[in-house]
Amino acid sequence: VNTLDASAVVHAYHEAWTSKDFDTAENMLADDLVVEVPINDYPTAKSFAAAVAGTASITTNVDLLAAMSAGDEAMLLYDMSIERLGTLRVAEHFTVNNGKIIRIRQVHDTAPVRAAGLGG
Amino acid sequence: VNTLDASAVVHAYHEAWTSKDFDTAENMLADDLVVEVPINDYPTAKSFAAAVAGTASITTNVDLLAAMSAGDEAMLLYDMSIERLGTLRVAEHFTVNNGKIIRIRQVHDTAPVRAAGLGG
Repeated sequence: VNTLDASAVVHAYHEAWTSKDFDTAENMLADDLVVEVPINDYPTAKSFAAAVAGTASITTNVDLLAAMSAGDEAMLLYDMSIERLGTLRVAEHFTVNNGKIIRIRQVHDTAPVRAAGLGG
Repeated sequence: VNTLDASAVVHAYHEAWTSKDFDTAENMLADDLVVEVPINDYPTAKSFAAAVAGTASITTNVDLLAAMSAGDEAMLLYDMSIERLGTLRVAEHFTVNNGKIIRIRQVHDTAPVRAAGLGG
C-alpha cells in the first residue's frame, strides 16, 4: 500500500479518530483543509479537529459500512452511535494530496443533530 | 466496460433518472430492491421509482461531484437543485447484483426537505 494514496490516508484518519487518537487524526489534515459540512462552520483544520474530538468523545460506536476510492478521492459510509442522539448515518468524501487530507465533505441528516442540541 | 459491473450500472441509473428517462431507471432496480433513506419509506422498487420520478420532476439541475466503486458497490456524491428547496447535497451508496441495483442507501439533510414540505 502506498501510504500517500487516498485509500490508505483516509483509512488511517478514520481509524485514528474512531480510536480517539486525535493527535494522529489532526496530523493527517492539511493546514489549509477545506471543510464542507451541513451544519456548523470550521474555518481551520484545528477547529475541525477539535469538533471531531468533541463528537468522538460522545460516540460509543462507529460501524463502517462502505469504503472506496478513486484517484486522489475516497468515500466512506458509516453509522455513528452518539449519546443523546442515537444512530447517525454519515457519508464522507475526502480529497487527498501528498498524504494529507485537503478537503472533507460530510453528508448527514441535521434534524437529529439539532434535536439533540448539537447544532452550532 | 462490463455492463454488469457496479460502476457501469450505477452511472447508467444516474444518467437515466437525471435525464428523466424513468422507464430505464426503474428497469435497473431489482424487484426486491432494499431502500434505506432518512425520510419517507419505500417498501417496493416501484414506490421508490415513483418517488425518484416525482423528485426529478421538480429538479432543475444535478451536479455530480464524485463517483467511485469497489466490487459490487458504488457511491455517488451530487448536488441537486430542487424547486422551493434550493440545493440539496446527496450521497448514495449502491449494491449491485447481476446488473441490477439491489440496495440503495441515501444520505442527505432532511431539514430543508421538511421545510419545503417534501417530507412524507
